[in-house]
Amino acid sequence: MPNRWLEGELPSGFQDLLGYRLVEWREDEAVLDLLLDHRHLNRAGVVHGGVLSTLIDTACGFAATWCPFEGRVRRVVTLSLTTSFTGQARHGVIVARARKRAGGSKVVFCAAEVTDADGKLLAMGEGTFRYRSGSESPEGVPL
Amino acid sequence: MPNRWLEGELPSGFQDLLGYRLVEWREDEAVLDLLLDHRHLNRAGVVHGGVLSTLIDTACGFAATWCPFEGRVRRVVTLSLTTSFTGQARHGVIVARARKRAGGSKVVFCAAEVTDADGKLLAMGEGTFRYRSGSESPEGVPL
Amino acid sequence: MPNRWLEGELPSGFQDLLGYRLVEWREDEAVLDLLLDHRHLNRAGVVHGGVLSTLIDTACGFAATWCPFEGRVRRVVTLSLTTSFTGQARHGVIVARARKRAGGSKVVFCAAEVTDADGKLLAMGEGTFRYRSGSESPEGVPL
Amino acid sequence: MPNRWLEGELPSGFQDLLGYRLVEWREDEAVLDLLLDHRHLNRAGVVHGGVLSTLIDTACGFAATWCPFEGRVRRVVTLSLTTSFTGQARHGVIVARARKRAGGSKVVFCAAEVTDADGKLLAMGEGTFRYRSGSESPEGVPL
Repeated sequence: MPNRWLEGELPSGFQDLLGYRLVEWREDEAVLDLLLDHRHLNRAGVVHGGVLSTLIDTACGFAATWCPFEGRVRRVVTLSLTTSFTGQARHGVIVARARKRAGGSKVVFCAAEVTDADGKLLAMGEGTFRYRSGSESPEGVPL
Repeated sequence: MPNRWLEGELPSGFQDLLGYRLVEWREDEAVLDLLLDHRHLNRAGVVHGGVLSTLIDTACGFAATWCPFEGRVRRVVTLSLTTSFTGQARHGVIVARARKRAGGSKVVFCAAEVTDADGKLLAMGEGTFRYRSGSESPEGVPL
Repeated sequence: MPNRWLEGELPSGFQDLLGYRLVEWREDEAVLDLLLDHRHLNRAGVVHGGVLSTLIDTACGFAATWCPFEGRVRRVVTLSLTTSFTGQARHGVIVARARKRAGGSKVVFCAAEVTDADGKLLAMGEGTFRYRSGSESPEGVPL
Repeated sequence: MPNRWLEGELPSGFQDLLGYRLVEWREDEAVLDLLLDHRHLNRAGVVHGGVLSTLIDTACGFAATWCPFEGRVRRVVTLSLTTSFTGQARHGVIVARARKRAGGSKVVFCAAEVTDADGKLLAMGEGTFRYRSGSESPEGVPL
């Protein structure tokens, strides 16, 4: 998989802040990972729900916007997001895997799961996204 | 409103990272605010959905765990969280207001809204929480 | 409030089956009610979650599509729906109140609550809807 | 698969009203089907979102409560439910497949999908459930 951020598109400020990485990206699929440290934990010492929701939102967003054309990108706006918090983690690498499940030219639906290093399910969720103008087709828009 | 964090309970690592503040906290209600900067933005330059979901989760969690007894706290685990992304913001202070809506001795339901400085609705959402052992009653557990 | 169904638009098959009524409808708001009987109950003898989700979806859909022009209507497609089940009911009239909270020309966001005859909250939820072609403006399309 | 309803447990009133059937039921999994007719349709002539949410809620509830012991059952209460509406159907048999994804002794998380006769995804969703007293273990409670 090409690392798109090396090809021109910079990580967002929030990605820099949290430190997650896009490790796989292909048509209709995306995988992020994140090495947990104390900055990601809540007052109970486990990964904050906001971190898990962020990974689900972001991984789904990437899954919805794969664009194989150099110098071009596709953009979506998240309309709604759900997260079920099924497990807890305190450290190690967690992985979010998202897949586009359905969608037309205007709206796209994705689902994602977050697991810990042992494969235990930490969270699952669904995102509904609207394509920004020009992003409906795989050709996307200029970067 | 007493600032509980001055009374013993430290902010979580994730709160420190994002920079939101608990500005109001009373029975069944909590208010957070956050001064947006580039660290909170997505690749489109608007506040990342993960920031909004985090504020909703956190504000709801506080609304569910008000404890008026010094040196004691209540703890919840988020079971599920939803967010509808209704608007966008790029800068300024955004505010999340949460309210406990229902619940018994085991599970509690809250809802929250996030608005920008002009009162425009940026996001709304619902959280379902489970009380940790000992946190069902207002007396809570020792800090 | 005019009863639109007397003015031309028939209830849906599913509305006939469940028996809910549109009792208030105005710009950005709608209220449904339903007299519970054994047909609406689950195996535990309380109102089925599907009934509550249906009322939230439907009430939100009406709130999103108020059209003050005779012989014209507006149409939406539900994109996503959430329900938090906060209470139980076995009989009596339950009421779903929905309100449009935000939205532009393509997508609209609503929230709704269902209460029993004593005002106890049974459920709350959020719906995201896409306007069908021609339904973005209050003028809507011919019935 | 044994048809549990022939063994003692009657369908709920709401199941009778809608007409869905439990066609597979095993540990952590359940499948429902429903033959669509005009009673299940909304004003646009496609299956009502409430039907799809009902199937997701119900299928998830069964997946959470498999009990292999004759004359005994397990009970859950739905805490929250989400549905993403990814496709439309007007007729034919639709199928809801649910799977338990995680859970402990108090709370269980399931996910479900609804497809049409051609396998097209109509909806997907997640449910969070609380076990009723005595239902935490596979032994359940007397019918």
